[in-house]
Amino acid sequence: MDVKAAVALAPGQPLSIEKVQLEGPKTGEVLVEIKATGVCHTDAYTLSGKDPEGLFPAILGHEGAGMVVEVGAGVISLKPGDHVIPLYIPECRQCEYCLSLKTNLCQAVRATQGRGLMPDGTSRFSLGGEKLYHYMGTSTFSNYTVLPEISLAKIREDAPFDKVCYIGCGVTTGIGAVINTAKVEPGSKVIVFGLGGIGLNVIQGAKMVGADMIIGVDINPKKRSLAEKFGMTHFVNPQEVVGDLVPYLVDLTKGGADYTFECIGNVKLMRQALESCHKGWGVSTIIGVAGAGEEISTRPFQLVTGRVWKGTAFGGARGRTDVPKIVDWYMDGKINIDDLITHVMPLEKINDAFELMHQGESIRSVIMF
Amino acid sequence: MDVKAAVALAPGQPLSIEKVQLEGPKTGEVLVEIKATGVCHTDAYTLSGKDPEGLFPAILGHEGAGMVVEVGAGVISLKPGDHVIPLYIPECRQCEYCLSLKTNLCQAVRATQGRGLMPDGTSRFSLGGEKLYHYMGTSTFSNYTVLPEISLAKIREDAPFDKVCYIGCGVTTGIGAVINTAKVEPGSKVIVFGLGGIGLNVIQGAKMVGADMIIGVDINPKKRSLAEKFGMTHFVNPQEVVGDLVPYLVDLTKGGADYTFECIGNVKLMRQALESCHKGWGVSTIIGVAGAGEEISTRPFQLVTGRVWKGTAFGGARGRTDVPKIVDWYMDGKINIDDLITHVMPLEKINDAFELMHQGESIRSVIMF
Repeated sequence: MDVKAAVALAPGQPLSIEKVQLEGPKTGEVLVEIKATGVCHTDAYTLSGKDPEGLFPAILGHEGAGMVVEVGAGVISLKPGDHVIPLYIPECRQCEYCLSLKTNLCQAVRATQGRGLMPDGTSRFSLGGEKLYHYMGTSTFSNYTVLPEISLAKIREDAPFDKVCYIGCGVTTGIGAVINTAKVEPGSKVIVFGLGGIGLNVIQGAKMVGADMIIGVDINPKKRSLAEKFGMTHFVNPQEVVGDLVPYLVDLTKGGADYTFECIGNVKLMRQALESCHKGWGVSTIIGVAGAGEEISTRPFQLVTGRVWKGTAFGGARGRTDVPKIVDWYMDGKINIDDLITHVMPLEKINDAFELMHQGESIRSVIMF
Repeated sequence: MDVKAAVALAPGQPLSIEKVQLEGPKTGEVLVEIKATGVCHTDAYTLSGKDPEGLFPAILGHEGAGMVVEVGAGVISLKPGDHVIPLYIPECRQCEYCLSLKTNLCQAVRATQGRGLMPDGTSRFSLGGEKLYHYMGTSTFSNYTVLPEISLAKIREDAPFDKVCYIGCGVTTGIGAVINTAKVEPGSKVIVFGLGGIGLNVIQGAKMVGADMIIGVDINPKKRSLAEKFGMTHFVNPQEVVGDLVPYLVDLTKGGADYTFECIGNVKLMRQALESCHKGWGVSTIIGVAGAGEEISTRPFQLVTGRVWKGTAFGGARGRTDVPKIVDWYMDGKINIDDLITHVMPLEKINDAFELMHQGESIRSVIMF
């Protein structure tokens, strides 16, 4: 079938709106009509050409929501008409990782997904006869896409696509880091490095679980008011701090934070985030994705005296299990997504969404098909 | 009173056996007759002069066992005749750290202990009228010493001093890292970097909790047989591995270890230990103490994909609570200390103990008073 997609033809080039050919779902696969998709920094990172695993030409996009159109043979958990959120980390519930009960990093389709292909080793997308790569197993920058059944979370039908698509990445990553990875408790002191979309979701996650002190750190003072709306209790602009940031934050928290989160991908901030943690029990969680080859460092004394350094992908969430719950939380008013979606546009304007992101104008732009 | 002690008069010099003057216990303090003490790498590190916090002249020693002789005013938990193990990390059960229930790093006497003094800011030891510093709050290289009440674990009276003194540091550090810090579960795959005293105690801790695979890594093949006796199931000599050690260990463990432990203090091994962990859930615990100023590094991707980096001091054990239990385990035959104590000597021969350690001849030397 012919579908409409924004195609990444080559690194560093704007996306190109094309009529693309999409094959129907094979065994274990599902055809989904994408109704809305967010545009995320990870898409921009791959499009830039800096992602060493980036493949071209490809259909990017990994933060969508839509409706099942057709299911392939053997698909039992979904049927046409079901509302779904695509998952770039699947949940097969069968592999060693899923069964470990210790991680959300299901490996069922990892190898082929990493090569831009469906689990059978082929692509469903082509353009004028030339194969297009899938991206993160989702390729939501297309009005129709094909995914493995295990890469789809079934959600309630009254949830608006243009809002809950953001649960496909940013919302779950931020809130999940708080509740699944760090396991922040009521009364905690929390520091969030970077008040972009991820940071704001960390803040609302920390607020939801009852943190007492939620400090936001950002060099852009314009981020303050929205962060306060989401639950930030203290704003720190490193450029206004006299002396080093770490001792300032340790003082502000009376000994260090119980939990810190790095939401940018800057290895220097990752170190500051660790070292701002409280001796004895502070846990620092890396959410941001650093550039290829970059390394984090610290003195081992930081760990020997009780700080813990960890990281998270998709907020430690098991997509099929946890994403529907987060959709419920949104529908119940427990979390705020509306204020994070600052721009909405049609697919034809998708390059504007990247531009707004690079200029720091948007928290999240959503494409409506 | 006059006591007999091995005094560290200056860095880099042998200890000097001296008749030292010891004041009696003040409020909240306890006079202990030390019956036996181990000689540990940490003592050697401080004696070498490399420890930036080392103070001289001082009475070193932190791995002792003895008997209460006299208690100061206000001491309620101990009485003359009680058998005790000195604790270089106290357990006051009152401070923010103790009450957090998240750490063993009681801070009640930290400031003065770090300055080589008793909690009232003075020393009990002097030599010819000159003040001697206490060391780690314990100073067990003296046949009598004074400690705060909260720095003493009361133990059963049938436990032999010359064995259970080792529980004052090495045994608890190794076993505690397994059970308190890493929380190794039955069936786990474990890698232990360094098969000295700490490493062997990690091994027996891992065996005690039911680990399936216990891999020991050491460049000295002579370490193999004793490690096997303690529960090591696989020995890896990095000098015999073709190619990089990390992928070799990941292969051997079919994906990486569930838990790794660095027991040497080498920052390169700390990185290897982290990166030998299983994606998704592997936990690496730093036990060894690195040189001043040295740093650990890795790619943040290691953490974002689910590995956790942590450290431990005194095995995460709360001394007054946990040390008596470990003494019971020894008395019940659940753990082996006898085979770790390779040399016993009088205080007059204490410099031989350091020499044996430096030559790699001993696992642990114990001084009997």
